[in-house]
Amino acid sequence: MRARKKSWAPREIETNPALIETPTDHAGRWAEYFGNDKPIHLEIGCGMGRHITKLAAENPGVNYIALEREPNVIVTGARAAREAGLGITFIIGDAREIAGFFGRGEVSRIYINFPDPWRNRRKWHKRRLTSAGFLHAYRHVMGDTGEVFHKTDNMPLFEFGLEQFSQNGFALRNISLDLHKSNPDGNIMTEYEMKFAALNLPIYRCEAFYSSST
Amino acid sequence: MRARKKSWAPREIETNPALIETPTDHAGRWAEYFGNDKPIHLEIGCGMGRHITKLAAENPGVNYIALEREPNVIVTGARAAREAGLGITFIIGDAREIAGFFGRGEVSRIYINFPDPWRNRRKWHKRRLTSAGFLHAYRHVMGDTGEVFHKTDNMPLFEFGLEQFSQNGFALRNISLDLHKSNPDGNIMTEYEMKFAALNLPIYRCEAFYSSST
Repeated sequence: MRARKKSWAPREIETNPALIETPTDHAGRWAEYFGNDKPIHLEIGCGMGRHITKLAAENPGVNYIALEREPNVIVTGARAAREAGLGITFIIGDAREIAGFFGRGEVSRIYINFPDPWRNRRKWHKRRLTSAGFLHAYRHVMGDTGEVFHKTDNMPLFEFGLEQFSQNGFALRNISLDLHKSNPDGNIMTEYEMKFAALNLPIYRCEAFYSSST
Repeated sequence: MRARKKSWAPREIETNPALIETPTDHAGRWAEYFGNDKPIHLEIGCGMGRHITKLAAENPGVNYIALEREPNVIVTGARAAREAGLGITFIIGDAREIAGFFGRGEVSRIYINFPDPWRNRRKWHKRRLTSAGFLHAYRHVMGDTGEVFHKTDNMPLFEFGLEQFSQNGFALRNISLDLHKSNPDGNIMTEYEMKFAALNLPIYRCEAFYSSST
């Protein structure tokens, strides 16, 4: 997500201790960083943070980390979380480097909400956050068991994601091909999703999971 | 699919050698029955046979078997195939007994088109042709590798099917959440699909596959 430059962004980045630019410093030592052993849930591409701040407010038993590569976008969520006293950590970084941000098995759940679908051409597919290379990295940071919660409004991207998950060792559950019509308990909408839902267009969702014992 | 009694049905069943009521006689010996080693593709719930007769006309290199439990429905396809000189075999039988109809690995592909979705309640799910018990039987008759081609207009059934396939050792490919809009080459419509497509409602399709080596 792109955004206009915010005059206050540099200062927020400089002064907000929950905004991290060098996550590799904590790889393998996130429990130490958080000072507890709560499970870590990661949102990749958190945008302005509406989804993760609401999640964090409802789930004090989880350590949340939000990843976003656009500094001018991530600062909005980081500031809101700071002001609300929510212990979310925000990483300014690129999802392609995620395997270096965490030790094996440090993350227990990943959210991927409305990622860039890129062009629906084979040469662009590897950029998608649900492509095989990324799934491989997710399995590394989640270790023996893990789950990815995925939402999108983009039909070709969702078709692609289901195929990729199933072809890379994930099983699927709670698939919805029209999320808002099935009206699930506890769905938290992203900023993007709110605009989209107002147009009455379908939102697709699934949970992909694996366990190395199965 | 239900249908009115056809006065000519008993005679067709009696005289058409391609209409079989005791498929277990041939289990493990279908190559002998066909007199060749072509791959066997099976349609479960063939209805009046529009889909499989068109498939068979286009693919002389395949032995087709059509399964349908309603005698008054299956005779229509059986008569049409006989008159057209297509070597399709029609089994009057119940899909729940499929593991007894074939030896392990005799079938290489299964089609499941617009099956009864049953009620979308957990206690009815096991009746669905894409539920775990059926998938287990399909894997038996397909052996080391196999593929299931599935189409439906029923959203909850399709969501269920994707989950069941992925949770029972199948990977997914060629998923389409709006088959007629993506306008695939070579899609052969069933009788039911033609009526449905005329209403411009989406048809869902996927291919589920496995290989014991992967």
